[in-house]
Amino acid sequence: MSIRELREAVLEANLALPRHGLVTFTWGNVSGIDRKEGLIAIKPSGVRYEDMVATDIVVLDLDGNTVEGSLRPSSDTATHLELYRRWPPLGGIVHTHSTHATAWAQAGRAIPAFGTTHADYFHGAIPCARPLSAAEVEGDYERNTGLVIVETMGETDPLAMPGILVNEHAPFAWGKSPDEAVHNAVVLEEVARMAWLTLSLNPQQAPIPDYLLDKHYLRKHGANAYYGQGGSR
Amino acid sequence: MSIRELREAVLEANLALPRHGLVTFTWGNVSGIDRKEGLIAIKPSGVRYEDMVATDIVVLDLDGNTVEGSLRPSSDTATHLELYRRWPPLGGIVHTHSTHATAWAQAGRAIPAFGTTHADYFHGAIPCARPLSAAEVEGDYERNTGLVIVETMGETDPLAMPGILVNEHAPFAWGKSPDEAVHNAVVLEEVARMAWLTLSLNPQQAPIPDYLLDKHYLRKHGANAYYGQGGSR
Amino acid sequence: MSIRELREAVLEANLALPRHGLVTFTWGNVSGIDRKEGLIAIKPSGVRYEDMVATDIVVLDLDGNTVEGSLRPSSDTATHLELYRRWPPLGGIVHTHSTHATAWAQAGRAIPAFGTTHADYFHGAIPCARPLSAAEVEGDYERNTGLVIVETMGETDPLAMPGILVNEHAPFAWGKSPDEAVHNAVVLEEVARMAWLTLSLNPQQAPIPDYLLDKHYLRKHGANAYYGQGGSR
Amino acid sequence: MSIRELREAVLEANLALPRHGLVTFTWGNVSGIDRKEGLIAIKPSGVRYEDMVATDIVVLDLDGNTVEGSLRPSSDTATHLELYRRWPPLGGIVHTHSTHATAWAQAGRAIPAFGTTHADYFHGAIPCARPLSAAEVEGDYERNTGLVIVETMGETDPLAMPGILVNEHAPFAWGKSPDEAVHNAVVLEEVARMAWLTLSLNPQQAPIPDYLLDKHYLRKHGANAYYGQGGSR
Repeated sequence: MSIRELREAVLEANLALPRHGLVTFTWGNVSGIDRKEGLIAIKPSGVRYEDMVATDIVVLDLDGNTVEGSLRPSSDTATHLELYRRWPPLGGIVHTHSTHATAWAQAGRAIPAFGTTHADYFHGAIPCARPLSAAEVEGDYERNTGLVIVETMGETDPLAMPGILVNEHAPFAWGKSPDEAVHNAVVLEEVARMAWLTLSLNPQQAPIPDYLLDKHYLRKHGANAYYGQGGSR
Repeated sequence: MSIRELREAVLEANLALPRHGLVTFTWGNVSGIDRKEGLIAIKPSGVRYEDMVATDIVVLDLDGNTVEGSLRPSSDTATHLELYRRWPPLGGIVHTHSTHATAWAQAGRAIPAFGTTHADYFHGAIPCARPLSAAEVEGDYERNTGLVIVETMGETDPLAMPGILVNEHAPFAWGKSPDEAVHNAVVLEEVARMAWLTLSLNPQQAPIPDYLLDKHYLRKHGANAYYGQGGSR
Repeated sequence: MSIRELREAVLEANLALPRHGLVTFTWGNVSGIDRKEGLIAIKPSGVRYEDMVATDIVVLDLDGNTVEGSLRPSSDTATHLELYRRWPPLGGIVHTHSTHATAWAQAGRAIPAFGTTHADYFHGAIPCARPLSAAEVEGDYERNTGLVIVETMGETDPLAMPGILVNEHAPFAWGKSPDEAVHNAVVLEEVARMAWLTLSLNPQQAPIPDYLLDKHYLRKHGANAYYGQGGSR
Repeated sequence: MSIRELREAVLEANLALPRHGLVTFTWGNVSGIDRKEGLIAIKPSGVRYEDMVATDIVVLDLDGNTVEGSLRPSSDTATHLELYRRWPPLGGIVHTHSTHATAWAQAGRAIPAFGTTHADYFHGAIPCARPLSAAEVEGDYERNTGLVIVETMGETDPLAMPGILVNEHAPFAWGKSPDEAVHNAVVLEEVARMAWLTLSLNPQQAPIPDYLLDKHYLRKHGANAYYGQGGSR
């Protein structure tokens, strides 16, 4: 993949955010990585989606040095970098303030797996990170956001749990490509909405049993997946 | 009806799902049946609605053998087949993960008939099936989903109760044609939303009395129906 | 106003319902009256909005006899007739199953005046009628629906309370013209939504004081109204 | 800025209200001020957005005398004037009845800062004014609405708290320009919606700590802001 293609893919994924109703104004950003070249492409900070073109997308190395582009990268860049460094399978990362997922993050609650819609994409409850301390917020804030995500996920396979809630803040989602990351961010928002409604109908609702969680997750993602036409999704 | 016409009708009904806001991505499928030929047409698995054409629609016999089409049929095909075999009046079946109906399914609650909107289409509470056991999930899962729907419905006339909630999962709806099945799926979602709001305004709300349920259902569907212009709806 | 003009106005008002998101499929109807001729024009029963033309609109006298049009009038016609006979100032009537107003009707609760949005149009709580008895439902149902609306309103000025909730059913709204009736139906739905949200933020919320209710209602509707450009709204 | 340009900016800002889903019918108004000339431009009262042109926008001096325009200015003009007189940094003011912010106003509750979405724009809880007394409502009502806003804000910097809830009524928002005022009204509505959802997931949820509030607010607005491309937002 050339830098031009990476930028195009990241531009397209960013433009998909308003199309899916996930962002208000400029609240959201998508990045992608070319693992071979060690290059990351990310949305510029505070630029309106309707004005954005491929050459606005900023290209950085894994240490955050700008390689191409004249704009300032997203203020959340250090978070993205931390996640790419930790998890080699990641090809794209999304951050949004989508309404329902943000409400769960603000309530400081993990989203339980209440049904098969959830289990088709997230192999268990979608975790909510602990709040950052004063020192973490006042220090290298965006990098510390990445570190607390990594701490919360622990040894979980990031492709089996392709999203998380940052406490007092909003969701991050990821995938093998920028496009798949956006797909997972859409699902996270819809699953958050359904789970909120479920609790309002039954505040004591328990999550689905593991055998149903496994069945649905593996029917779409395991070695013996039988959903779709044999492609990756 | 030729196979071509059946495929066209099923394609149209599938395309109506995103138009009515019932599906995210590829989460939903519609099938239709030609009872004379014993042939079922169903959406292919994991294909995007925006790309779908009539020849993508898979044609099967009632045992699930592909008769026409090169794609894999919906992963929920075995559920559809079970329902067509059980109920000869069914001409179309829809499965969606529409937001509010899915929340009721996730909460494991039947939707009470709280008003005439409900009674115009569903002659009583919309049932929620029992959860599947581990053995049922790990065995022939999609067929067992069909069997638990049949078990829950019992001797109920499927045209007087044209939808159900699969516990921990999402709704199915049906009708005399693929188009009517989609119509009922739209109503089920709207009725689920109104019932959720009703309970949030009055958690102890009782269902409407039988005489009102009968009045509305029969004014649209009975032998003396006087709604509409004399057609079937 | 000629019959042609009345039909056109009623057609336009009916087409405004889906545009304002107040109806699913054919669930809703608007009528208008020419008081001089004593003629009512109303939507035909069960006809899709996208297919409707002015000559589909049925013209009736105040006893419900068809004067022009070959289609069957709305099944709710007898309700409309009862209201026109009772209140000479009415020029248009709307019935919808709009989501939030219907939820209040299903919960059997009047909508309290919680703020100035409400007070700008409805001079007090929007009443909810008592449920109909078995005899009323099994008898002349649609006419009895009109009678219970009239009973609930009592001596209230219908132009100062241009809508009501029919228990276990859905809202009716009205105005000096079909267009104004639709306008009030839109406001009723929005006020119902805001009131539901208000109660979910504060279940004990009291209505606004009479002096604020009067101020807002009269600033728009009284003899000394100073909202707008001097027209009727 | 010429009067023509001021009117154009105010027209554009008014037309943005329905585009952002903040208004039903004519419920909302935006004004702008030319501080050098001491001239205010504001939406005319009760005119439909789809029909509005720049010359409909009314131009007034700070005492409320019409300088240009033949229409009656918004009935809320006296509120706008009070705020412009009190706070020299204000360049634009918006009043809407947006759904979720209005629900908070009707519930008489300030919106706590539950997350960074809020903190990016509002430096603390968004206040709710006390209800107006009978004398205040029956007297110079619209001016008194302005005075209670000023009273509630006290010594707060209006650019660090660019919006407020008027009890029993609805929100006002403002900014350095009409466009920025609309931007803040959109954020206020979205923050109100997220906060409602947050409380429904956790009724005891506490606001975020001051160090996180400061961090986000200052990352976007302080002297050392590092969000965006160096412009004002």
